[in-house]
Amino acid sequence: MKIAVDAMGGDYAPSVVIEGITAALYDFPDCELVVVGHLGKISYYMEKYGIENHPRIKTVHAEEVVEMSDPSTAALRGKKNSSITVCAKLLRDGEVDAIVSAGHTGAAVAATKIIVRTLPGIERPAIAALLPAQHGQFILIDAGANTDCEAKNLAQFALMGEAYAKLIFGHEKPKIGLLSVGGEDVKGNELTKEAFKILSEMSINFVGNVEGDTIFENVADVVVCDGFMGNILLKGSEGLAKAIMHWMKDIFSKNPIRMTGAMLARSAFKELKEIGDAEELGGAPLLGIKGICVIGHGSSTPKAVRNAIRVASDFVRFDINEKITRRIIETNMMINEKDKNENSSVHGNE
Amino acid sequence: MKIAVDAMGGDYAPSVVIEGITAALYDFPDCELVVVGHLGKISYYMEKYGIENHPRIKTVHAEEVVEMSDPSTAALRGKKNSSITVCAKLLRDGEVDAIVSAGHTGAAVAATKIIVRTLPGIERPAIAALLPAQHGQFILIDAGANTDCEAKNLAQFALMGEAYAKLIFGHEKPKIGLLSVGGEDVKGNELTKEAFKILSEMSINFVGNVEGDTIFENVADVVVCDGFMGNILLKGSEGLAKAIMHWMKDIFSKNPIRMTGAMLARSAFKELKEIGDAEELGGAPLLGIKGICVIGHGSSTPKAVRNAIRVASDFVRFDINEKITRRIIETNMMINEKDKNENSSVHGNE
Repeated sequence: MKIAVDAMGGDYAPSVVIEGITAALYDFPDCELVVVGHLGKISYYMEKYGIENHPRIKTVHAEEVVEMSDPSTAALRGKKNSSITVCAKLLRDGEVDAIVSAGHTGAAVAATKIIVRTLPGIERPAIAALLPAQHGQFILIDAGANTDCEAKNLAQFALMGEAYAKLIFGHEKPKIGLLSVGGEDVKGNELTKEAFKILSEMSINFVGNVEGDTIFENVADVVVCDGFMGNILLKGSEGLAKAIMHWMKDIFSKNPIRMTGAMLARSAFKELKEIGDAEELGGAPLLGIKGICVIGHGSSTPKAVRNAIRVASDFVRFDINEKITRRIIETNMMINEKDKNENSSVHGNE
Repeated sequence: MKIAVDAMGGDYAPSVVIEGITAALYDFPDCELVVVGHLGKISYYMEKYGIENHPRIKTVHAEEVVEMSDPSTAALRGKKNSSITVCAKLLRDGEVDAIVSAGHTGAAVAATKIIVRTLPGIERPAIAALLPAQHGQFILIDAGANTDCEAKNLAQFALMGEAYAKLIFGHEKPKIGLLSVGGEDVKGNELTKEAFKILSEMSINFVGNVEGDTIFENVADVVVCDGFMGNILLKGSEGLAKAIMHWMKDIFSKNPIRMTGAMLARSAFKELKEIGDAEELGGAPLLGIKGICVIGHGSSTPKAVRNAIRVASDFVRFDINEKITRRIIETNMMINEKDKNENSSVHGNE
């Protein structure tokens, strides 16, 4: 299996990315890794970590880098030789099975969408984020690829999320919910009210609207939303978790008895911090494209990069795109069948 | 000062509402309270708490109640004699200075918007929620009154939030941010990109886009968003806080040393739980209407009802509507002035 890694993507690239690649190289012996980046800048680190002549390592030169301050379209317009663009081309040409980048998310989405293209029946790819629930985890899709969506996009996200849930939870019929502001179908905004109707008619295990206050209570395995919404919820959760850690520190250091208590329980605080740890998760897949793309956090550590490569290899092995495509075809067939029946019943009434 | 309380609103009404009214009656000696509800159902509790003949208590009969499962329009169509509708009419007719309800939020918004009407220059009222920040608090507006908004609505929410921030933080120029998915003005969805332009041109202390991961870090005193977004963020925070408490319980009870630690620090956990406590806050104001309306949580306790009445009295005393109206006029004047200058400069170039 071949995986290309954008060595220039991320706040501490290329150093930490190449350190992460080194770890992955030894931990995943069935993977060949293609390091994509400016050769002048990466060779020092390749040598430093002693992987420059490794038989399962290849390098591909990319002249430019999409910076965090660049627009998402930079990968396609101004910087056509950027590392993420080169990664996308390798994926399109079948040179690799998957790509991994901790760089500019918008650029990775734009590059793969336009260069690699979406699966048949999918109009927009979406980022699927794994969030912690009271017991286990749930998938939030779209977590940030599309700021403005139509209802049919949300329906496609549901099928993509369903395939991902089968991979990680092993359920045949994962519960799929729609992020909204009220339990009933009449509640929500224009987008979710329309999406509710479509999702209700699909052959999925649709559990209806899911509200913010119960989303962490295992009410659904997959929660569908537009990428603006999803990104705010995802980052808002990150922000709140940070704030709670801050308040705890403040509150526990108020007197010596509390401090003693906190010290005795320090392993518990460590364990708490590890819940939903971005480093452990590695990265979130961008689903719906003709290939595998895993997007890491900008502040990825070497361990996070290693784990993002692991996530990519899991997806390749699971052949998720075959599963998404099959469900898209089944669902379209079902909708066509329904249309036919409705049309014939209309004719019957004439 | 006269405040009407919807005695039928809330999951445990009328019992807990009347208990809360009783507490407020003794704690706020400058308030006259009007208890609105079905007399047959409230009189038992009025007697139970010994307030039936109190000189600062009045009752007004309302035949019906808007139930949580009713649509928001029930207050205006099917149930024209519901307690929230009667409250809104008392406010419109100047019989009271403020109303308080822990009932159906959508019904309270619809009833006040249509019966009481909005302030001049305000098209839609908005709910302003007070959330905890790492240091102090911030205001999220709109927290759930409007599921679909236009950019100009967000601009009006900014002025309403500014007035509220002056009341509680005392700053002359509170920092106002726009909830979005990226720091720069080019990031966001169609709505926020347009709102960003308008907010940038207003005479407010606009600090730009605020992302979910920094929203709790005191980057802004007021964060503006549409009500769908705001409600998801508000309830999502509530849900995550609950989940974290759940994980802590699990993790701390894993071994006796951790349990001892937790026991020593139990006052700290209690303090942590009190941050952002809905009971303490009492309720969130619905801003932008010709009068004061405070909306409580459906599961309000007596203490929460008492505090919601306190919030209502604070708003009356602060005369917030006069302040909002003045800022709306100033801003409109500024915009008109700008338009004039732009027009004259256009003429100058001819």
